[in-house]
Amino acid sequence: MHSLIAQIQPVDCAAGDRARAYLDTLTKPPGSLGMLEQLAIQLSEISGERAPTITPPGVVVFAADHGVAAEGVSAFPQAVTAQMVANFANGGAAINVFARQVNARLEIVDVGVVSDVDMPGVVVNKIRRASGNIAIENAMLPEQAQAAIGAGINAVRRAHQAGCRSVIVGEMGIANTTASSAMLAALTGTPVAQVVGAGTGLNSQQQIHKVNVIERALAARHFEASQPLSVLTALGGLEIAAMTGAYLAAAAYRLPVIVDGFIASVAALTACRICPAVSGYLVFGHRSEEPGHGAALEALEATPLLALGMRLGEGSGAALAFPLLQAATAMMAEMATFTSAGIADKTA
Amino acid sequence: MHSLIAQIQPVDCAAGDRARAYLDTLTKPPGSLGMLEQLAIQLSEISGERAPTITPPGVVVFAADHGVAAEGVSAFPQAVTAQMVANFANGGAAINVFARQVNARLEIVDVGVVSDVDMPGVVVNKIRRASGNIAIENAMLPEQAQAAIGAGINAVRRAHQAGCRSVIVGEMGIANTTASSAMLAALTGTPVAQVVGAGTGLNSQQQIHKVNVIERALAARHFEASQPLSVLTALGGLEIAAMTGAYLAAAAYRLPVIVDGFIASVAALTACRICPAVSGYLVFGHRSEEPGHGAALEALEATPLLALGMRLGEGSGAALAFPLLQAATAMMAEMATFTSAGIADKTA
Repeated sequence: MHSLIAQIQPVDCAAGDRARAYLDTLTKPPGSLGMLEQLAIQLSEISGERAPTITPPGVVVFAADHGVAAEGVSAFPQAVTAQMVANFANGGAAINVFARQVNARLEIVDVGVVSDVDMPGVVVNKIRRASGNIAIENAMLPEQAQAAIGAGINAVRRAHQAGCRSVIVGEMGIANTTASSAMLAALTGTPVAQVVGAGTGLNSQQQIHKVNVIERALAARHFEASQPLSVLTALGGLEIAAMTGAYLAAAAYRLPVIVDGFIASVAALTACRICPAVSGYLVFGHRSEEPGHGAALEALEATPLLALGMRLGEGSGAALAFPLLQAATAMMAEMATFTSAGIADKTA
Repeated sequence: MHSLIAQIQPVDCAAGDRARAYLDTLTKPPGSLGMLEQLAIQLSEISGERAPTITPPGVVVFAADHGVAAEGVSAFPQAVTAQMVANFANGGAAINVFARQVNARLEIVDVGVVSDVDMPGVVVNKIRRASGNIAIENAMLPEQAQAAIGAGINAVRRAHQAGCRSVIVGEMGIANTTASSAMLAALTGTPVAQVVGAGTGLNSQQQIHKVNVIERALAARHFEASQPLSVLTALGGLEIAAMTGAYLAAAAYRLPVIVDGFIASVAALTACRICPAVSGYLVFGHRSEEPGHGAALEALEATPLLALGMRLGEGSGAALAFPLLQAATAMMAEMATFTSAGIADKTA
């Protein structure tokens, strides 16, 4: 991890300035393509090129179980994590559908599912069988956090070596909104009640119970809020650690990486706390309905591309945003300029 | 027009109900795909099918000039309308780029450009050379409004006959936000100052002038606010009339049609006032930065899919939304169900 972090360079602001100037020569009123123009500038900052190639995207989905599921914090039983991994392997989940829509390479990585899920289409890189129940013990050992981050780094390395020019990171793990809410409260000081939501479908009484479990965990665990790895170790999850590693690796390889919803944003925040230069490589795909996502986005000073009222995870919102990245690069590559098209500039 | 309107049927709510029920059997928490689920339901209502085919889309862009440009209400000179039509024909505008991204059939239709624009790639269906200057005369004669609506109907008919399974409607016309603002104020009673914005780039003083011009037009023209054709004739534009016809035709052919920004929404509102059943066929692509768009969306009770701070027109925001329609239909066609994937349902 440390040698990889040492490779991360800040994005190329000069390339961004050149892209910004070029945008104003294209046949449209200046600024009239709004966030798509900002996106094009960011993709130039990341790549150093005016119209970078961002296809094919690589989708990496990390799966793990959470000991805290034993506290009754999820609407679905823990067995669903492994069942959904099988669904991913069989191509039937939402992320499979949306990945196919954008011709993505898709890889599913088991970093901590409680049961055996070795089947075709699943990379098994199990660090341990589920994280610890954070209400009564640390989520993992420090060396397990490091290993899970390494699993995330390796997944992005494989995508990069396979020719992927951008990355979409997703997750599956019953009870992982609980771990994410606990981490976010620890990292930002936001009150727990403001970062807890329905997850996969809790009612309001069950949400109060979830808040209580997280407050117990925060009181009982030892961590240093300014040390992201200590927060991850005490309160996190194996897939959250792997996602953190994936964002670090994307930045190191200078690949744009699309951040999904709540859990992904907490992992992205962890990566930015480890290495602030990562933030320039993050494209925020969508605003989740999960209430904690707002607090995470605020901490990241991020504005997502989409806001479709989604709350599924798996990388689904990030994958749906990918066509906007394609449109932004196509705009830079293919649009005529006022001069080339012989069009009058503003009268003013 | 009247025989076509007689063909328009309300959308199939029973098919929508079947889609809604099916969505809850798919391997995701109920409702967790948010607006994408609503979109899938609407596409089922339109088609009567669970997973309709919506590709290829047909993009139709109507171009016309506006006599009111003489009042100095646009940041760009009138000549830009014809220059942009040439840019469309040469494939260099934003809508060309975004249409290619979604493999759309693209047709440019001249319904009222002031100069001759007959060149390969442009369908010439010129009703007159620019609309009248609404500050001093009606925009067009009633029979010209009918003819322009007919031009829009014919364009969608050609797209339908060419095999298009959905429609994206765009426009180009210097000063057409002025005509649209006037129409919207007339149709909804919204104060002019609330429906006027920067257009292609006016400063605040120029916007005050634009408000004054529109208020003059509203005071001097005779129209019946409850008669959409009279509003169109007095205050509209030839491309706005053609767009109105395009929405009517899409509904008659049971094709989903993606509404672009401000001007498109005013035309869509006009179509819905002519035939309320049209509204079920309209998918709103994006929320424009143009302030009048909010009032138009409110009148249409519409929530757009995207909000990217765009204000270009041409159909650009509608085309960018198209991949979400593809994702919605793919979700219905390809996702596994809880039963087929052998996944446990909620514990609750």
